[in-house]
Amino acid sequence: MAEGAALRAVRGCLAAFPREARELGWPESIPYLDRPPSPLEFYREWVSPNKPCIIRNAISHWPALKKWTSAYLREVVGPKVVSVAVTPNGYADAVFQDRFVMPEERQMPFMDFLDIVEKKVTSPNVFYVQKQCSNLTEEFPELICDVQPDIPWMSEALGKKPDAVNFWLGEAAAVTSLHKDHYENLYCVISGEKHFLLHPPSDRPFIPYELYQPATYHVSEDGSFEIVDEKTAEKVPWIPLDPLNPDLELYPEYAQAKPLQCTVKAGEMLYLPSLWFHHVQQSHGCIAVNYWYDMEYDIKYSYYQLLDCLTKTVKML
Amino acid sequence: MAEGAALRAVRGCLAAFPREARELGWPESIPYLDRPPSPLEFYREWVSPNKPCIIRNAISHWPALKKWTSAYLREVVGPKVVSVAVTPNGYADAVFQDRFVMPEERQMPFMDFLDIVEKKVTSPNVFYVQKQCSNLTEEFPELICDVQPDIPWMSEALGKKPDAVNFWLGEAAAVTSLHKDHYENLYCVISGEKHFLLHPPSDRPFIPYELYQPATYHVSEDGSFEIVDEKTAEKVPWIPLDPLNPDLELYPEYAQAKPLQCTVKAGEMLYLPSLWFHHVQQSHGCIAVNYWYDMEYDIKYSYYQLLDCLTKTVKML
Repeated sequence: MAEGAALRAVRGCLAAFPREARELGWPESIPYLDRPPSPLEFYREWVSPNKPCIIRNAISHWPALKKWTSAYLREVVGPKVVSVAVTPNGYADAVFQDRFVMPEERQMPFMDFLDIVEKKVTSPNVFYVQKQCSNLTEEFPELICDVQPDIPWMSEALGKKPDAVNFWLGEAAAVTSLHKDHYENLYCVISGEKHFLLHPPSDRPFIPYELYQPATYHVSEDGSFEIVDEKTAEKVPWIPLDPLNPDLELYPEYAQAKPLQCTVKAGEMLYLPSLWFHHVQQSHGCIAVNYWYDMEYDIKYSYYQLLDCLTKTVKML
Repeated sequence: MAEGAALRAVRGCLAAFPREARELGWPESIPYLDRPPSPLEFYREWVSPNKPCIIRNAISHWPALKKWTSAYLREVVGPKVVSVAVTPNGYADAVFQDRFVMPEERQMPFMDFLDIVEKKVTSPNVFYVQKQCSNLTEEFPELICDVQPDIPWMSEALGKKPDAVNFWLGEAAAVTSLHKDHYENLYCVISGEKHFLLHPPSDRPFIPYELYQPATYHVSEDGSFEIVDEKTAEKVPWIPLDPLNPDLELYPEYAQAKPLQCTVKAGEMLYLPSLWFHHVQQSHGCIAVNYWYDMEYDIKYSYYQLLDCLTKTVKML
């Protein structure tokens, strides 16, 4: 076989794989469960096959669902100084002007942040409490008793506790760009709604990555933002594509990818499996809490690494 | 990148994968469990990551361990006509003389078979009760009460019953050639011992397959065997390599594969995960019962299909 033909055959394997994975494993839309399944059933039917689902009646007993009004949050954590991601455009951790741009991490009293979200104070910028370092337990321990420190049936299923519990509250303009995490993610919406656009890991051959210089938004004295390179930081791979408005001339492979979209409403929990690509939007002022359980680095992970290696190699041509 | 360089890079991904999978996921030797784990633990720690183990005290309560003597088997199933695989060389379902050769399936009273195994009658041929069509439930229902119709904790873990329960009794010369099955396999040794040589699915790039004309051993009037082609049957892919004596000149890639070997003794159970390659030998007259639970055709299976597709493509060069 000539080398050209062999490479076409390799491309053929890589192109057939996402379709076959979809036919065997992925749903047409994200299924709903009426209640949390048993730990064994959850592991077998969802975690092990790496399938997303939305679970109802998993958090309906949480006091947070009724308690977390603006007045209550102001009372309990109002004066506390917390970390808020601020950007001029709503894109934190995203590709902008050929850089991977991280937000300004502004330390401010939580009540000042609420004033902005509630439009009592006007700002041209976009604010999002989204610090993913277990900020619920680290920055908002007063709120933990209104939710749970872990999801008991998930901890039993996985045989471990979550690595992080994160609190999210932000403006409608705040968007999370397409990316993936090495966590099994239980994403619980307390108020408002979150809009997810998902791709299974098997869509990797269709999803572009490029290497970008890391940079951070710095606010100037006149209030405008400048993008400052993190000069000592190595370039990071990130996805330049906006799945809501994909540039198919630049990334024609993406036309073959099939996003799954879903809206997670207050009181619902999304199981977002490890290594699934996700792009997230929200209703204005949406509050959410999510649990990150580290994934297992087993054969499934090794296979993903193989897929990643092959995708990069074939793309270099 | 030139095409030659791209293909070398593809080969690089494929060669790195088995090593990385081994480092992350596979043990140096098959681990032992002192007792059966809970269904959830078994699914999480062994089935989902596709890892083999040997389980002790899982079948120690089976009456078969003490009851299944020659005298008892002769009494209970002696006159019964059963299906026995007969070959001149011990290799049933294996590559021989450039064909995929299946055994003569001889119908004979079980006691006549026992006479041969116990050398009360001499035969130049090799006999093996190994019919894998749930022959324990189909041909030996009298014996089921001495074992179990399923393994309850495995059935609970997988949420289903076994597709087949097989009974194995054969001579030391009877060898099972290297192959894989799409089953989660619980292999229980009642008496004697079985010697397994295993390769994880990630070793696929190092394991040769060729296409062979199916054929069957037919016994002639003078008692000698002839190999008769199954003319209407399509060619089947099979592994020509003998892992105990690999021809590394013909199959140099196999030098990079790392077999795991283990001996499963009477009273022990091997969990042989789906898609693991296995080659099996046994002590003379070894009796075993195994449970085949159909595997899940999920993302792990799709990934294996991708690996298989790529391995075939790259080998064609």
